[in-house]
Amino acid sequence: MSKKILVLAGDGIGPEIVAEAVKVLKALQAEGAIDVTLEEALVGGAAYDAHGDPLPESTLAAAKAADAVLLGAVGGPKWEPLHISKRPEKGLLGLRAGLGLFANLRPAVLYPQLAEASTLKPEIVSGLDIMIVRELTGDIYFGQPRGVETLPSGERRGINTMVYTESEVERICRVAFDIAMKRGKKVCSVDKANVLECTEMWREVATKTAADYPEIELSHMYVDNAAMQLVRAPKQFDVMVTGNIFGDILSDCAAMLTGSIGMLPSASLNEHGQGMYEPIHGSAPDIAGKGVANPLATILSVAMMLRYSLGAPEAAERIDAAVSKVLDQGLRTADILSEGKRQVGTAEMGDAVVAAL
Amino acid sequence: MSKKILVLAGDGIGPEIVAEAVKVLKALQAEGAIDVTLEEALVGGAAYDAHGDPLPESTLAAAKAADAVLLGAVGGPKWEPLHISKRPEKGLLGLRAGLGLFANLRPAVLYPQLAEASTLKPEIVSGLDIMIVRELTGDIYFGQPRGVETLPSGERRGINTMVYTESEVERICRVAFDIAMKRGKKVCSVDKANVLECTEMWREVATKTAADYPEIELSHMYVDNAAMQLVRAPKQFDVMVTGNIFGDILSDCAAMLTGSIGMLPSASLNEHGQGMYEPIHGSAPDIAGKGVANPLATILSVAMMLRYSLGAPEAAERIDAAVSKVLDQGLRTADILSEGKRQVGTAEMGDAVVAAL
Ligand SMILES: CC(C)[C@H](C(=O)O)[C@@H](O)C(=O)O
Ligand SMILES: CC(C)[C@H](C(=O)O)[C@@H](O)C(=O)O
Repeated sequence: MSKKILVLAGDGIGPEIVAEAVKVLKALQAEGAIDVTLEEALVGGAAYDAHGDPLPESTLAAAKAADAVLLGAVGGPKWEPLHISKRPEKGLLGLRAGLGLFANLRPAVLYPQLAEASTLKPEIVSGLDIMIVRELTGDIYFGQPRGVETLPSGERRGINTMVYTESEVERICRVAFDIAMKRGKKVCSVDKANVLECTEMWREVATKTAADYPEIELSHMYVDNAAMQLVRAPKQFDVMVTGNIFGDILSDCAAMLTGSIGMLPSASLNEHGQGMYEPIHGSAPDIAGKGVANPLATILSVAMMLRYSLGAPEAAERIDAAVSKVLDQGLRTADILSEGKRQVGTAEMGDAVVAAL
Repeated sequence: MSKKILVLAGDGIGPEIVAEAVKVLKALQAEGAIDVTLEEALVGGAAYDAHGDPLPESTLAAAKAADAVLLGAVGGPKWEPLHISKRPEKGLLGLRAGLGLFANLRPAVLYPQLAEASTLKPEIVSGLDIMIVRELTGDIYFGQPRGVETLPSGERRGINTMVYTESEVERICRVAFDIAMKRGKKVCSVDKANVLECTEMWREVATKTAADYPEIELSHMYVDNAAMQLVRAPKQFDVMVTGNIFGDILSDCAAMLTGSIGMLPSASLNEHGQGMYEPIHGSAPDIAGKGVANPLATILSVAMMLRYSLGAPEAAERIDAAVSKVLDQGLRTADILSEGKRQVGTAEMGDAVVAAL
């Protein structure tokens, strides 16, 4: 039966990069490798502009009805003056919450062809392959109470709440352990258990849950040390699991170790394997509409989609291999360009991947 | 009049490194360059072992009565099984709160002599000189409510609260702006204003406060992007200002960019210029008692103390210069050792600094 994919191009470079990912999907479809139906909807600033809402009801409903969502990126300076409840980011957060996408998988992988793009010394990052498993529907992102109140003195006070239940911690740890079982079997759980009671509980639950995975080597690390260790010796990590806000910070740090965030995809999954797939980079408003953005992270997000939500691992493999091949061919978008390589635009890169499939 | 310094050696390598810093103070005292009185007390695990309390009343009282506090480091695996309220870290947090040390200054400076210690490419970090100004007595570190509650279902739920008032944000921003006025006049305020209302307010207050500093170039950055930018192009930063938890993570990341956290001091100040001074590295229990720890970060913390709390900038300069000189002489503790340099122990390094004063 045909699988439904909802395509949300979003803002900035979103439409350009998503168009290339759709090309790849259609190419696989045309030759019968996959059977998918594509639908489109608005989210983020684009949805706000059209409907006054960064996540219209109809978009959320379409997302719920889909097997998977492909997202470009949301946000931009145009919408920054808006109240926080109307910002493009709220569209993204609403999708995460609305679909229950609690498990965010963010690989930080260094492509050997792009090793020199890293700001770190080659011996520190060559062969880097970390999977960051970030909890995505809890923590201070969604915790209540939140907001800004005015005190009797007239002064304002801002509040946000970090909150986790045991079952929320357990299920994200299980995701991390399951993934690690197919990799290096090492999981580092990151918390601030020496200061925050909420994360002290996180550590206890992680330890308890690990008892079901005797083969997993579980370690714990404070978040400040984790930020250090990512810079000092990132290859010590296999899978890292952490909460929403720490994961936000650490996964971006880890991604940048590769020097090529234009290459990194992500998956956000719920309990039923339904997922949203997006590049980890943002909407890059400064280069939007110029046809120079790197579509590879979005194309690789399609590979993750085929693997995790659509049950088409062979097609996923082919995309991964095709991306590697275009890099071997020396094709580079501006963000990953280096001496002696051929600079191509967004569409040309997408075409090259299709040709290499 | 003689200035009072309370010396808190703490745990792990604390006593060893503090002993060398005290040597430096005594050398300056002996030649009349400064006039100080030293007192000692227990904090952290050492205080817990002796009194069942990581911050005995008498220690806090002595700290309040002092002009400045010199701290080694606290913590270690020995005390990790303790309840969070009895851990060594609580001693540190109690001192910060008890003395009102809201401004944590954490320089991330690359010593040219140690450039190769960095895991980053030389062109990315050479000449690096960032000052991170971290708010230290607010945020999720101290916010109420906090703790772990049991829900009617029997499941536990952990909570911590991020909270800031406008005046707390304003005063830390003023510290950052004042410091930037004596440096590159650029301040980057780091928040998560796209998600957290508390930090949206932070951004507003930072912007408003900057109106009093027309020469300061203020920018804003989301914390995840800041973690990326520190890895991508750290030299874009002059002064960064942020809240307690983001500052904890980012300052450790920034410190590690230098590759030599054994070299980095810190100051924690209150509104009266009273301060606590400590190396940014931890208590390193694995090498404690071996005489191999690097005392330079603690010695440089004494220089910060002389500059910020004791009104002795010339003596501070002399310490900074002496540290630079011993590095020029090729002396290195194990943590910063490289080919062709001479390895020395903790005490020998302290003696060398005294000789170079
Ligand atoms: C855009 C923003 C709301 C989002 C987040 O903070 O989760 C982004 O940084 C991410 O990591 O996907
Ligand atoms: C030891 C710990 C409580 C402390 C903190 O989190 O503030 C440390 O990491 C620091 O940065 O001084």
